[in-house]
Amino acid sequence: MPTNALPPNRDTIADAFRTLQDQICEGLEQFDEKGLFRQDLWRRDAGGGGRTRLIENANILEKGGVNFSAVHGPMPEKIAAALNLSAGEFFATGVSIVLHPFNPWVPIIHMNVRYFEMSNGTWWFGGGIDLTPHYVVPEDAVFFHQSLKNVCDHHDPEYFGRFKTWADDYFYIRHRQETRGIGGIFFDRLDGANHQTREQRFAFVLEVGQNFVPIYTELMRRHKDRSYGNLEKSWQEHRRGRYVEFNLVYDKGTKFGLDTDGRAESILMSLPPLARWTYDHKPEQDPEALRTQSLLVKGIDWAAGAPAVSA
Amino acid sequence: MPTNALPPNRDTIADAFRTLQDQICEGLEQFDEKGLFRQDLWRRDAGGGGRTRLIENANILEKGGVNFSAVHGPMPEKIAAALNLSAGEFFATGVSIVLHPFNPWVPIIHMNVRYFEMSNGTWWFGGGIDLTPHYVVPEDAVFFHQSLKNVCDHHDPEYFGRFKTWADDYFYIRHRQETRGIGGIFFDRLDGANHQTREQRFAFVLEVGQNFVPIYTELMRRHKDRSYGNLEKSWQEHRRGRYVEFNLVYDKGTKFGLDTDGRAESILMSLPPLARWTYDHKPEQDPEALRTQSLLVKGIDWAAGAPAVSA
Repeated sequence: MPTNALPPNRDTIADAFRTLQDQICEGLEQFDEKGLFRQDLWRRDAGGGGRTRLIENANILEKGGVNFSAVHGPMPEKIAAALNLSAGEFFATGVSIVLHPFNPWVPIIHMNVRYFEMSNGTWWFGGGIDLTPHYVVPEDAVFFHQSLKNVCDHHDPEYFGRFKTWADDYFYIRHRQETRGIGGIFFDRLDGANHQTREQRFAFVLEVGQNFVPIYTELMRRHKDRSYGNLEKSWQEHRRGRYVEFNLVYDKGTKFGLDTDGRAESILMSLPPLARWTYDHKPEQDPEALRTQSLLVKGIDWAAGAPAVSA
Repeated sequence: MPTNALPPNRDTIADAFRTLQDQICEGLEQFDEKGLFRQDLWRRDAGGGGRTRLIENANILEKGGVNFSAVHGPMPEKIAAALNLSAGEFFATGVSIVLHPFNPWVPIIHMNVRYFEMSNGTWWFGGGIDLTPHYVVPEDAVFFHQSLKNVCDHHDPEYFGRFKTWADDYFYIRHRQETRGIGGIFFDRLDGANHQTREQRFAFVLEVGQNFVPIYTELMRRHKDRSYGNLEKSWQEHRRGRYVEFNLVYDKGTKFGLDTDGRAESILMSLPPLARWTYDHKPEQDPEALRTQSLLVKGIDWAAGAPAVSA
């Protein structure tokens, strides 16, 4: 798409996101070998619709969704107020992914790429990709951040630093004073500022999306056969509890979707299959879990290499 | 307390709530036989503190909390804004309970009684008690609502109708278009309106609190030995998922506590030990679960008897 002769418009962007959804589902199915996505098509009364694709009880993936949507119509008042925009017609399209693996050593991953435009000519891209390991494996965190830095650096030398900090701030569970995971990149309202064209922004966002499969399959490959027991499974369930807390208390996309009467099953596909809460849980018998807790903080420069830590 | 010669003030109200917490913990421990509450005392930097009492892995109760707190100090700005109040000193005390039983036939129960006052003389009581059965047992729902109606009718013939409707509206999961459970009573800002004295309001709130143990022990007695299998356990975990959704997305006390930097572990003691999410879950093989789904609607007049339903 970015190499197309014509500049991208809402239709070509939606088409590219639809194709991205297909490619990601295929890539994940190929790697998982067992898992097949099921699809729910839905329509929005006021305009547009989506393709919700769900995977459950595959080989590596316990539960996950790869969703595409493209919706349009008169701007709902709540959305206009939330985004501080005037009324008019809007168009929004995007791909959203959350994957919860069985093996506690394989991380939870989330990605979103989206495009928004208004009838008055306003447009922007948003999105990001971030990792929530149940156990932080420093080598993985370095690999993940370096991969994202590479993608960013192809487009703008300032992107990675800005978007990495943005992710640290966004994926933060304030009431726990801990990050959701090891972050990644997060960006919003990437518009025509600084002489950026829609084509340039789109090329960046699409490259983020196209890197999802190679990055996550590498992480699955590293850990899918690693052995684990009840200790690790229990820790995974507790970490998933924190994931639920973040998504239901803080995540803007989730709040926004629920507030504007979005399709609840599609929005909440991000929730884990099974989550656990124990009062004041402290994983004293699990040194790897304790180390993970110490690494759920903002500002670690993973792209520069793993920090020195004491387990 | 209500028969005391002196009118209640913030200290006598806090004392009564503290005693209520003791009585409820004792009542539950006696009935459960195995379960013993552990206590965490905490202090609030700006004034006051609380006694968090937790029970985990008892005989009947899998996880639960019976919390008391009495806090005071300068009114935090966020609270003043949320309650539409002017600045000044505030005082707040209350007891909050959520209990999650092992047996899916025993319902989840929640109760809260609270008192709030400001240095400018403003005061009110709030609270309520509501039931979230994993499986709605109509006879239990009738017993529960009639018990609450009795309590209300001792104090004001208009209370039950108003507070029952309030509970239906409050304990509602809007994005699922279903009630959290079968409701109960909910009330807030019970102040000196309609010539009510603080003594009269307090007598009502205290009687709500004192009925908690007799009501819930009766419900435990009815179902604690009922057999169940994986089907019922899975349904219970899904219903707990909805409980999590309500508490993290809608519950004002939870939002308020997290927003104002309350003690996260005390606030989130309401979350279940284990919750499950399955995409678009439909319990087709569980007729009792299907019947329950049909009963999670507003406006059922349980106090008048069970509605005619087709399973």
